[in-house]
Amino acid sequence: MTPTFYCIQFGMDHPVQDAAPTADEDRKTAVIALGGNALVQKGVKFASFEAQRRVVEETARQIAALMEQGWRLAITHGNGPQVGNLLLMSRVAHEAQREIPEIPLDAANAHTQGSLGYLIAQAIGNALRANGNHKQVASLVTQVVVDRADPAFRNPTKFVGPAYEIETANALSIRMGWRMKEDRGRGWRRVVASPKPLEIVELPVIKKLIAADVSVVTVGGGGIPVIKEGDKLKGVAAVIDKDRASSLLATDLGVKLLAILTPVEHVFADFGKPTQRALRELKVGETRRMLAEGQFPQGSMGPKIEAAIRFLSNGGSQVLITDPANLIKGIKGEAGTRLVS
Amino acid sequence: MTPTFYCIQFGMDHPVQDAAPTADEDRKTAVIALGGNALVQKGVKFASFEAQRRVVEETARQIAALMEQGWRLAITHGNGPQVGNLLLMSRVAHEAQREIPEIPLDAANAHTQGSLGYLIAQAIGNALRANGNHKQVASLVTQVVVDRADPAFRNPTKFVGPAYEIETANALSIRMGWRMKEDRGRGWRRVVASPKPLEIVELPVIKKLIAADVSVVTVGGGGIPVIKEGDKLKGVAAVIDKDRASSLLATDLGVKLLAILTPVEHVFADFGKPTQRALRELKVGETRRMLAEGQFPQGSMGPKIEAAIRFLSNGGSQVLITDPANLIKGIKGEAGTRLVS
Repeated sequence: MTPTFYCIQFGMDHPVQDAAPTADEDRKTAVIALGGNALVQKGVKFASFEAQRRVVEETARQIAALMEQGWRLAITHGNGPQVGNLLLMSRVAHEAQREIPEIPLDAANAHTQGSLGYLIAQAIGNALRANGNHKQVASLVTQVVVDRADPAFRNPTKFVGPAYEIETANALSIRMGWRMKEDRGRGWRRVVASPKPLEIVELPVIKKLIAADVSVVTVGGGGIPVIKEGDKLKGVAAVIDKDRASSLLATDLGVKLLAILTPVEHVFADFGKPTQRALRELKVGETRRMLAEGQFPQGSMGPKIEAAIRFLSNGGSQVLITDPANLIKGIKGEAGTRLVS
Repeated sequence: MTPTFYCIQFGMDHPVQDAAPTADEDRKTAVIALGGNALVQKGVKFASFEAQRRVVEETARQIAALMEQGWRLAITHGNGPQVGNLLLMSRVAHEAQREIPEIPLDAANAHTQGSLGYLIAQAIGNALRANGNHKQVASLVTQVVVDRADPAFRNPTKFVGPAYEIETANALSIRMGWRMKEDRGRGWRRVVASPKPLEIVELPVIKKLIAADVSVVTVGGGGIPVIKEGDKLKGVAAVIDKDRASSLLATDLGVKLLAILTPVEHVFADFGKPTQRALRELKVGETRRMLAEGQFPQGSMGPKIEAAIRFLSNGGSQVLITDPANLIKGIKGEAGTRLVS
């Protein structure tokens, strides 16, 4: 039983509530990608679990409201600050007490999938129950296959974990075999590969959950990176870009909407210049051209725009980029930046 | 669509392979509870992730073989050593660098559900694929409701995390509000409540997965303990007994088999005495009497026997207690201890 997903066409002239009713709700299916700001307050270096809980509650209310409208969702999330803090904690503890083993990177991602998956699913469940709704949401531990031959393994670029003085960085490089690079203004940090996601291992399970009207938190932190050794899967020290994995998930599920939540309501052209302007609707060709012009820097909007282009090029029809507070308005076409094929 | 679960009656005279075929495989449904020894080598204090991976592989092969026979499984697991090490790591890191916040107990459980769920699901998936089988298994982050008024909160008994000298223990008790007790021969340790599990929050999702022929790793470490505050769920500092939660899950799923894996093949009577004997089959009444006589100590077989009695008293028909290597033989009635109603 392979479910088929459809999606409403939305926009100013075709708002959600005007969509013709159908026999089932399969068509209202979306992938919602939560950025770090949906989980950690801006500028807070070490957010406690309680603080993250408070931040996630606002986003959870928006997601619950979508589910109440009949949307079935796959919810993905970043884990940058959390996995960084876990790796730092692991290192500091190991330095203080050598017998405590360090957490390998694949396991660290799995740890954060457990804790953030719990946090997000509980917050959405609470928001649903507060409105007397008993729709279900659950978090699935998710592995994503990457290729050992991916060129990213030869040129690791993704900073993970704490920053060190150059002397410590050198020592770590020798002792742990880590690649270290300078993170401007912070110090020397470990860099790991950020390979291309190829296959979501639990995809058939995600499909079954969504078909059974269970929204699912999945592909957390881009997914636990694994490589194939024959028939065997094996964890690998890498970090998969969360937006890239979300785009793959959206394509594989055949949803027509990918919503990427960011700290800002809109994507901007000429960001930070006197000519800065909010973009409300972008065609994929135009978006590709602006990306090539350097309009969307790698450190912020770049990966989201690339994920959007990839989804639209692979048959997707709509991407919404906006902040959590404008998610519902954005789907109605009243806020955010809409990218179309 | 609420699935109904049946189960074969098995034993020497009704082996699994003789069961009459049915339209679907729903009847071969079981809860398998993995003890700590299925994940960590005996006597190893700080098992690395790699070491745990090697240990879990043997158990995973047995579980995969069961799935290949058409069994649909809910797989639960303990997390004692892992959550203890995580709490220790968190504490050591916090002592060394005060800005690193400590991981609260509910989040620590969630962390281990992520990492152990990954480890177990990957190992089972690898064992399945090694035999060319494409059955699915996935790990679900699972919350379990407990009652804030449970008497266990007034009398915490469950040791968690590292042992301290009495002076440090006193200081922690004052600073953190922790209850500390002496763990004979180890030192002073934090004790937390071990309340009764009342409700598995994700139960409807687990049912849907099993109905869709997906085996599911769930209720890890007894589940993330949460209390209800009106409609809201909220994490709480407690540890739910893994065997007790597994028994609740088996009852709620309506499976007829609960298999509890231990380090030993059999339950023994008069354990450690000259009259020691392996028990092959036990009626629930007899088991209750032996438990009352103190035959099954709290530190080892006691909680498993109590979980077995509870499951059988609530309509379950079969419990198997054995070691991972004898799981398949035990189900055929050729190994282990079988408890029946």
